[in-house]
Amino acid sequence: MAAQEEINTWGSKSWTYVSSLRQQSPLIQCITNLVSMDLMANTLLAAGASPAMIHSILEIPDFTPHTQAVLINVGTLTPEWLPAMKAAGGLANQLGKPWVLDPAAVGASSFRLKACLELIELKPTVIRGNGSEIISLSMASIGSTKGADSLHESSDAVEAAKSLAKSSGAIVGVSGSVDFVTDGQRVVGAHNGLPMMQKITASGCAVTALIAAFVAIDPTRPFEATASAFSVFSLAGEIGMGLAKGPASLRMHLVDSLHGLDQETVLERVKITSFS
Amino acid sequence: MAAQEEINTWGSKSWTYVSSLRQQSPLIQCITNLVSMDLMANTLLAAGASPAMIHSILEIPDFTPHTQAVLINVGTLTPEWLPAMKAAGGLANQLGKPWVLDPAAVGASSFRLKACLELIELKPTVIRGNGSEIISLSMASIGSTKGADSLHESSDAVEAAKSLAKSSGAIVGVSGSVDFVTDGQRVVGAHNGLPMMQKITASGCAVTALIAAFVAIDPTRPFEATASAFSVFSLAGEIGMGLAKGPASLRMHLVDSLHGLDQETVLERVKITSFS
Amino acid sequence: MAAQEEINTWGSKSWTYVSSLRQQSPLIQCITNLVSMDLMANTLLAAGASPAMIHSILEIPDFTPHTQAVLINVGTLTPEWLPAMKAAGGLANQLGKPWVLDPAAVGASSFRLKACLELIELKPTVIRGNGSEIISLSMASIGSTKGADSLHESSDAVEAAKSLAKSSGAIVGVSGSVDFVTDGQRVVGAHNGLPMMQKITASGCAVTALIAAFVAIDPTRPFEATASAFSVFSLAGEIGMGLAKGPASLRMHLVDSLHGLDQETVLERVKITSFS
Repeated sequence: MAAQEEINTWGSKSWTYVSSLRQQSPLIQCITNLVSMDLMANTLLAAGASPAMIHSILEIPDFTPHTQAVLINVGTLTPEWLPAMKAAGGLANQLGKPWVLDPAAVGASSFRLKACLELIELKPTVIRGNGSEIISLSMASIGSTKGADSLHESSDAVEAAKSLAKSSGAIVGVSGSVDFVTDGQRVVGAHNGLPMMQKITASGCAVTALIAAFVAIDPTRPFEATASAFSVFSLAGEIGMGLAKGPASLRMHLVDSLHGLDQETVLERVKITSFS
Repeated sequence: MAAQEEINTWGSKSWTYVSSLRQQSPLIQCITNLVSMDLMANTLLAAGASPAMIHSILEIPDFTPHTQAVLINVGTLTPEWLPAMKAAGGLANQLGKPWVLDPAAVGASSFRLKACLELIELKPTVIRGNGSEIISLSMASIGSTKGADSLHESSDAVEAAKSLAKSSGAIVGVSGSVDFVTDGQRVVGAHNGLPMMQKITASGCAVTALIAAFVAIDPTRPFEATASAFSVFSLAGEIGMGLAKGPASLRMHLVDSLHGLDQETVLERVKITSFS
Repeated sequence: MAAQEEINTWGSKSWTYVSSLRQQSPLIQCITNLVSMDLMANTLLAAGASPAMIHSILEIPDFTPHTQAVLINVGTLTPEWLPAMKAAGGLANQLGKPWVLDPAAVGASSFRLKACLELIELKPTVIRGNGSEIISLSMASIGSTKGADSLHESSDAVEAAKSLAKSSGAIVGVSGSVDFVTDGQRVVGAHNGLPMMQKITASGCAVTALIAAFVAIDPTRPFEATASAFSVFSLAGEIGMGLAKGPASLRMHLVDSLHGLDQETVLERVKITSFS
């Protein structure tokens, strides 16, 4: 009975994010990797946000103050892009705007790991990665990643995530067959989703963007925003899977479904439960 | 009766562009933003053109002379890309080739505004933007844009567009629920389209690319090419919408429909009318 | 009868690649052009590989040793990207890892031609291009290309391909209405495919990525891997075409079909024949 009530509360929270996003259409600045730009922008548009892929360091002083949230993703990081990421993250922090870090493939190199650790010093509101990425960040070591794909189930990374949340002050979200969210104390799991979503490139990047959009709606509750975004995005995948014949059509139907989500479906099907 | 004849004339003009593009397959060099490359190239291929996303300044002297038109889009501008844009626009102008400017999100920063004003000095044949972008350019001021999305209806921008057309010598096209085209004196409106197209990232970039391809077919009539491209692209969207379930499937069906457009449909459904 | 047996042998070889790729999921590092990243990553994921679009020169010493193959594609080459391409190709060669070169639009400029000739000195395992690209490389001359699209049928390029294979030591694959593969002596043709695949941007880039993934499965047989990858990718296109209404839906159904290919279909429909 308690569990049932909890599910209903999360469904209602999630629907508030979905409907508010459609009404308010916050401006989300994305400094992201070259692979994900198209899916990320289309995900944000379908969900009702206004994406802006603006990454030149020269534009940050003029543009970032007008945004409602900033997303930084290091998936195709080069030394040329890092200063703009730091400038945008730092300015967001200074202005009290939420910003979200996606440490994509952080274990791929010491360069990338060092860059992510420096970005974390700029106080991201949320950090979202897969199990391997969160373990790499928490241990500050490389080699536990396989490119963009995870070698670890998300549940293996729960302790690493709690530790990273405590040390960084960020909400930490871990993608996997169950997505976990923690603030260092509380842990919730978002149980929506399906394995084929891992066959869509940049689906992790896209959910991070949706987290940024949800956090923009209510910057005071990033824990709730992160869990809701995980569940809503995966629910759109579940619905899309009903029409899909493989990963490419799933990608299309997921974005369509995100655009078309209605209150009844969100209330009924969002599945977020407490773990601690 | 006059209006009916006019519609028929535009339908016939538009079909000439569509069919000539399929026959001649002009080579269109695109120096564009990182978000739009995939949709832009696929739009050009579907319409019958041959796109080339070649943006290194080192290649412009060898490659640009072989193209039939050049497209420049500043959507993810950085200082590193600007010299190549200027070189390509300048060389196109010098060689008498048409070139088209998309001042994407020009109001986002003073850096971007200055870059666009410098590019306009290189005499683009056509400038295509949304209402906010054209107003920013015309007033040479920033802040009237919301990232890539417009805060203004295209009709608000008609006077700004006429002014920009006169000062620049370019045909100016303004995207919106009705798309407008002006040479500073004449104004026509292209009435095809549907609101969901604004939920597809880079749809504005893609129509600018189609304008470049149509202008390549007959560089002496950029006004007609721009109005026809607006209407044909939006008509493909209207047809695609019949099969779509949301923005991602609309994007797919739009490109398919552009590839499959037939004469009868273009003659019947292109809706371009005079406004002055 | 001999031909029939040969077809059956190639079907069986091709199926071995498909099924091994799904089981082993090799890590493929892609340093590729900005247009192709999304389709290339999704093609590799659909086929069972693990793509990593990691292109910073700083990351190559840490990351490239963990990969099973490297792909380098010069489609949007700039001077800033070339050193990383050389470092990755050179390190792959030094470590005995297979690497595959896609000389996209090599005839577009002397800069691009020189870069490709320098990359070939680093001993790629396979070179895959269209007819115009292979002729440009073989003659070391520019101007025989039209952007990314070919002006030559692949059959025109067979002698150029043999010559390039002999001089470079690489297997050379030539895309066209029939795809050819040669080691300088043997030539086989892969007869699957359909014309509309040329209306999908980056479809050539995607097949090169699949070649890299197949070569990763058995680095000692790049000739077989290249022919099989051509045929399997085109077969996925043939199956996808049954559901497609144009180039954009073909692209989607191709990726879905690649993901879903079964043994019976591969054995029956792969068509590779000997030419010398």
